[in-house]
Amino acid sequence: MTLALDNRPRAYAELERRFHRWTALKDARAVLEWDQATMMPEGGSEARAEQIAALDVVCHGILADPATGDLLAEAACEAGDLDPWQKANLSEMRRLWVHATALEPRLVEALAKSVGRCESLWRKARPAADFASIRPELETLLGLVREAAEAKAAKLGVAPYEALVDEFEPGLALAEIDRLFDELAAFLPALRAAALDRQARRPSPALPQGPFPVDAQVQLSRRLMQTIGFEFTHGRLDTSLHPFCGGVADDVRITTRYSEQEFVQGLMGVLHETGHALYERGRPAAWRYQPVGLARGMGIHESQSLLIEMQVCRGREFLGFLSPLLEEAFGARNGAFKAENLQRLYVRVTPGFIRVEADEVCYPSHVILRYRLEKAMIAGELALADLPQAWNEGMRELLDLTPPNDREGCLQDIHWFVGAWGYFPTYTLGAMTAAQLYDAARRAVPEIPEALGRGDFKPLLAWLGENVHSQASRWTSRELVERATGGPLDPAVFKAHLERRYLG
Amino acid sequence: MTLALDNRPRAYAELERRFHRWTALKDARAVLEWDQATMMPEGGSEARAEQIAALDVVCHGILADPATGDLLAEAACEAGDLDPWQKANLSEMRRLWVHATALEPRLVEALAKSVGRCESLWRKARPAADFASIRPELETLLGLVREAAEAKAAKLGVAPYEALVDEFEPGLALAEIDRLFDELAAFLPALRAAALDRQARRPSPALPQGPFPVDAQVQLSRRLMQTIGFEFTHGRLDTSLHPFCGGVADDVRITTRYSEQEFVQGLMGVLHETGHALYERGRPAAWRYQPVGLARGMGIHESQSLLIEMQVCRGREFLGFLSPLLEEAFGARNGAFKAENLQRLYVRVTPGFIRVEADEVCYPSHVILRYRLEKAMIAGELALADLPQAWNEGMRELLDLTPPNDREGCLQDIHWFVGAWGYFPTYTLGAMTAAQLYDAARRAVPEIPEALGRGDFKPLLAWLGENVHSQASRWTSRELVERATGGPLDPAVFKAHLERRYLG
Repeated sequence: MTLALDNRPRAYAELERRFHRWTALKDARAVLEWDQATMMPEGGSEARAEQIAALDVVCHGILADPATGDLLAEAACEAGDLDPWQKANLSEMRRLWVHATALEPRLVEALAKSVGRCESLWRKARPAADFASIRPELETLLGLVREAAEAKAAKLGVAPYEALVDEFEPGLALAEIDRLFDELAAFLPALRAAALDRQARRPSPALPQGPFPVDAQVQLSRRLMQTIGFEFTHGRLDTSLHPFCGGVADDVRITTRYSEQEFVQGLMGVLHETGHALYERGRPAAWRYQPVGLARGMGIHESQSLLIEMQVCRGREFLGFLSPLLEEAFGARNGAFKAENLQRLYVRVTPGFIRVEADEVCYPSHVILRYRLEKAMIAGELALADLPQAWNEGMRELLDLTPPNDREGCLQDIHWFVGAWGYFPTYTLGAMTAAQLYDAARRAVPEIPEALGRGDFKPLLAWLGENVHSQASRWTSRELVERATGGPLDPAVFKAHLERRYLG
Repeated sequence: MTLALDNRPRAYAELERRFHRWTALKDARAVLEWDQATMMPEGGSEARAEQIAALDVVCHGILADPATGDLLAEAACEAGDLDPWQKANLSEMRRLWVHATALEPRLVEALAKSVGRCESLWRKARPAADFASIRPELETLLGLVREAAEAKAAKLGVAPYEALVDEFEPGLALAEIDRLFDELAAFLPALRAAALDRQARRPSPALPQGPFPVDAQVQLSRRLMQTIGFEFTHGRLDTSLHPFCGGVADDVRITTRYSEQEFVQGLMGVLHETGHALYERGRPAAWRYQPVGLARGMGIHESQSLLIEMQVCRGREFLGFLSPLLEEAFGARNGAFKAENLQRLYVRVTPGFIRVEADEVCYPSHVILRYRLEKAMIAGELALADLPQAWNEGMRELLDLTPPNDREGCLQDIHWFVGAWGYFPTYTLGAMTAAQLYDAARRAVPEIPEALGRGDFKPLLAWLGENVHSQASRWTSRELVERATGGPLDPAVFKAHLERRYLG
């Protein structure tokens, strides 16, 4: 990468130049999206849509330019002269190029239009619990997505559903997801029953009574972010309707929302987004503007947020550190902030219909349901007419609950209604990966838990930085997990974590 | 512009498509620049520079694409089929294309590098009052700017200095600026002396004593912005080191800075930027994403801010409206907020060395000095070795003051040190245009002053909207002023304004 001695092969070097611009424009887009969610006045939305559309056209143009395809073909012949990072970079370039060019413009346009219509129908259909009203448009959209999946599958040499997953978590095999999720699905019902049973036999945790002044919540959030390792010289914390992590690696911007009555969700949201932020910030500086320098995928990204939120911040050690900070920020509140009470509060199991409200034990069941249904839809084995019934049957099988209506059933999530089949598995793959990474980190650096008890995240962050963050997209997710933990993703680790926390 | 019946000639229609994208990307850039000045953490600056550089490369690429040149040539032959707005649009496209393509890439690169070096040297040379240290680099930069001026002049068919001015205020002739500024220069010394004399014979205005809580200043600023016509659904008010008006037409974002000790400058800054904002917001919606829909130039832009700040908000009627609002916001403060006191406070004449601190009477002399010097530099008639002396002689001639050093002399402004020869005249052309537009508005709509006394800006805004804002770049500045006021820019109107306010 040095200019003084640039011995990169010609085609590869030209590709780096093009993808540098592509990445910088994507970064610009990320800042505009952050602004849209946090700062933009309502009346700016049309103008913002124009700006983002123009950026998308330009970014797509860089990939779709026939010269880019020619360069990729030429660079493939130069691969012998590339070092491992460059090779991985070339492979990521090719993957992005396939996703951008596999579809005919006619299909891209039809998809965009159908997504627009379907999303706006969904915004009415969900509150009305009216699946029938959206089914015809969803039928159209699913047809187009299946067409897209086949086009991409042909280019990537994988199954259609895998081609969809590839956009969010590259290189994941269907058989692998089946294996992981089947094992979890077999395990979870008994665990859930046992956890509920144990929970019923213990006293209920005290709920801290509000109000919790927003100012104090903001101060505490910022303090905890800094504790974890967030640098405010390279990022911000703001407020938005839905918490997210946005911005760019060296200017990473997380958001949360505050309620005066309830601060647990707001606080855990901040810790979750901080996990995402540290991953972004830890990507290798030398590859900031190349595809190989981007985060590996949504599953690994989610593993970083869940590792901080679920593995660490709901753990015994951290709650011991957090307890006095909460008392300092909000007062004693009848002992509700005692570490032991926090621990019972933060690991309560409460089965329900809604995924985004689910606890750590129930969440995977929600995801497995969606995974099975969407796989069947893409395979043409589940007709949309049968979706509500299949959903409810799946809920009974996996969570022993029957949704009273489709609002609390198959209409609850936006994903399918914006065409995002293939995304759901990444949530639970992330949770499993988080458990396995945290387990490996503690084995490699035994002092991590004790340090966390003192609010010292440095040992953990050093291990994550070396084994995950700095690796960016150098490896497939599978390779990344194997190199960091010594083996492939293994449900036993996640299961052991759940047993320890909920039955131990 | 309707899609149903698109009878635009082929080449012109394709140009509109290209410039639509170009404008939307420029808008994206404007939002990123606003963020940089208001929200961005310090550590985000390198990433932001990458984003903006990528946008600049893409925007330049749209103009420099040989196909754009071909389309412009083809569209010129179609001009007979264009309506007047389309014709004006084509002419603006051509102007942007000339500025973007007149310079060889070698010269563009050399300019960028020299500007970078010169700006950073200036940041050290100014506080040290050390002109000698920056002269060699400024010599290089001036040489490159003169080369650029000649290249653009050849394409535009104007004199080199006019080609530089054209970027900021299109189509202004040197002879015209000379005529206007010479008449002002002859008039101002006697006016200034008389104003100072009158001022000396009257009691000094009471200075409102601080502190002025920032919260109250923000509330008052927002209230006055709304009074003037700023819509917070389409814009924001924030804080930055230097006040500016940024964002885009439908999401226009102004900034100011607050001092607890002094609120006059902060408040006037808000009113000034609100004038800019209303112009941006009033540009014709149908031409948002075409060159003809952009603001006419910096002179007309400055006329809109100065019309609000100088013509209206330092005028008797508005100060009568403002007085009770100030008392409500900050308390009585010993009568310092009485309308009569405000009036004396807001029109004090205090000659000094620094342009940005100058009052309405002295400001034009600062500008005329810079205009004469920069014109001579571009013509090769003033060597940089002689600049400090020429500056000081000019100050004596125009303002009867001798700067004690170059920090308060020729090093004070950033413009030349970033290569912006040709910008200075727009300040005073703006002030003259503001006076003439306000004069015409009152003649056309006699109830304007009385309405302003009630805080009702609607009659004024309606006139400005029709005659200035909605006209965007449909006309040259000269045509715009003639159509709005019935005649070309006439120093007599500005002179009459100054006499009325400072001697009346």
